[in-house]
Amino acid sequence: MGAGSMQKVLVVDAGGTSTRAALVDVSGVCLGYGTASGGNPTSVGYDAAVAAVAAAAAAAVAAAAQPSVFSSALVAMAGGSPSMPHDGIAERLSALGLRGELEVEGDLVAMFHSGTHRTSGCVLVAGTGCVAAWISDSRLRQLSDGTGWLLGDAGSGFWIGHRVARAVVASLDSRGPDTQLTGLLLKAMQLEAGPERLHDRPRVLLELVDKLYQLRPIELARFAPLAFQAPEDPIAAGILTSAASAMAETLSKVMAQQAEGPLVIGGSVAGAMLAAKPDIAGPLRKVLANIEVIHATDGIVGAAVLGLKRVGIRVDAEVFQNLQRTIAALRT
Amino acid sequence: MGAGSMQKVLVVDAGGTSTRAALVDVSGVCLGYGTASGGNPTSVGYDAAVAAVAAAAAAAVAAAAQPSVFSSALVAMAGGSPSMPHDGIAERLSALGLRGELEVEGDLVAMFHSGTHRTSGCVLVAGTGCVAAWISDSRLRQLSDGTGWLLGDAGSGFWIGHRVARAVVASLDSRGPDTQLTGLLLKAMQLEAGPERLHDRPRVLLELVDKLYQLRPIELARFAPLAFQAPEDPIAAGILTSAASAMAETLSKVMAQQAEGPLVIGGSVAGAMLAAKPDIAGPLRKVLANIEVIHATDGIVGAAVLGLKRVGIRVDAEVFQNLQRTIAALRT
Repeated sequence: MGAGSMQKVLVVDAGGTSTRAALVDVSGVCLGYGTASGGNPTSVGYDAAVAAVAAAAAAAVAAAAQPSVFSSALVAMAGGSPSMPHDGIAERLSALGLRGELEVEGDLVAMFHSGTHRTSGCVLVAGTGCVAAWISDSRLRQLSDGTGWLLGDAGSGFWIGHRVARAVVASLDSRGPDTQLTGLLLKAMQLEAGPERLHDRPRVLLELVDKLYQLRPIELARFAPLAFQAPEDPIAAGILTSAASAMAETLSKVMAQQAEGPLVIGGSVAGAMLAAKPDIAGPLRKVLANIEVIHATDGIVGAAVLGLKRVGIRVDAEVFQNLQRTIAALRT
Repeated sequence: MGAGSMQKVLVVDAGGTSTRAALVDVSGVCLGYGTASGGNPTSVGYDAAVAAVAAAAAAAVAAAAQPSVFSSALVAMAGGSPSMPHDGIAERLSALGLRGELEVEGDLVAMFHSGTHRTSGCVLVAGTGCVAAWISDSRLRQLSDGTGWLLGDAGSGFWIGHRVARAVVASLDSRGPDTQLTGLLLKAMQLEAGPERLHDRPRVLLELVDKLYQLRPIELARFAPLAFQAPEDPIAAGILTSAASAMAETLSKVMAQQAEGPLVIGGSVAGAMLAAKPDIAGPLRKVLANIEVIHATDGIVGAAVLGLKRVGIRVDAEVFQNLQRTIAALRT
């Protein structure tokens, strides 16, 4: 690899709750690792995201054994794309030692590569939102859903939590069937059922409705775990199976492009779904039956795979394992 | 009726888009009528609602042939109830000539009485929201739904418009079937379909999603009419029939209290549903088959019925017709 063996690449994964950075060499060895607060521009704002990226990068560079410059950088962030303006980030990284190109990417390709070093396949991420993508040549080729809580994200944490809340409101209003979700949601909202009525409704219904409207709508996603806690309840099971169907539909569109896989799956809701009783997740399991499924682990590994690939370094199984092992070791 | 024949009652219907007031005598003759801007406290705020109530009342009093005091007042407003604090309104109406009691009521009992002078029955209102109630003794006895766009209002204008938007987004994203709603929604949002792609999606999908997220969620209700414009489209028809089912469920709960009716129906979405092809509205028509259905017309007539009843005046068919006729005449 000649001069390439001296190359160092800085990579950053800017996520919703934390931002992680790693300085890696061409063999996949992580030389320094650092973290900072959330760096998702859609949740913290662009300026705060840039600051988080710079803070994590500075920590990673400082942690490397020898002070160093690096030949390129790649930042993976939600909503990022190669066409996104990134002068602010470039300036901050130049001050830290960047002597070459910076690329900014969406987080989906990095999520895909957190599971595999291969160049093509599909990825499904179901957390608060839900989106799937077809990747080829380590580039995003096609998206499916990911259109947000109000207009899409079918099967997501919001989608499930919203249905949990609606089912409980309907039940307390005597329009919908009894469900174990009522007790779970009232407990989560620190409310107690009682016999009192107010404005010709159960008082607890009015209190629950008042409290839920004080949340931002997207926060209903926090009630998705309640459905997974009551899989033997018919209402909860119905919500979860519908979510599994929706995920399967979202996935089917991109799997039509590359049916043999691999398929990388990430996000807390996808994880809970695959851990649920097989009959609950039936529609999703059916789609996954004949494909190689890999659970995504750490977005920073994927960002590192991508950062190396983007400057022409071949990432094979050995380099990929080096990245996984050495990043995990420094992350403690 | 003795001294009662000298009584005058001021009544106000504070709605979302306008506030109407009438000064009526005990025989149901409207002596003065006035209007003002929207007076729904949940949409314009409490202070603006009080100001609108006072402005409409002042106009009604000024329009009466002779300057006069009035012996009682009743204000019907969304979210109002007999237990709601109303010192602000009482003060303004006293300055206009109120010499007795003020009552503040929710708008549902007034909506019921806009259709009938009888004391008991049910009411269904489906506009932006959806709610049903059982009324007896001219008092609200039981509510069904009306729990708002995020948590309930099943079958409402928001509920339908939200599904229209989601169906179009899914179709443009190639996850859902083609539908005539796409052309109708793109036209309503002043967008044009085209072949260009951006971030690996159709450009028009990104533009539509961006524009729709700039609306307040509740504004999706404005797309409900698109579904009624395309009743032969299977997606639109499916949405409408589901809405009719939801309305029927909401109604069934309160009709269980008084199955013989009368049932007063109001709101633009309920009106459109009853005007739609019978098979579209099937589930709702089934519930209405054996009950006397009255279309609500003007909330101010209902507020007047209630205002007279609350001070012990008997409202019979003749008084009711007087109210309808004389208010309509002054409203031009």
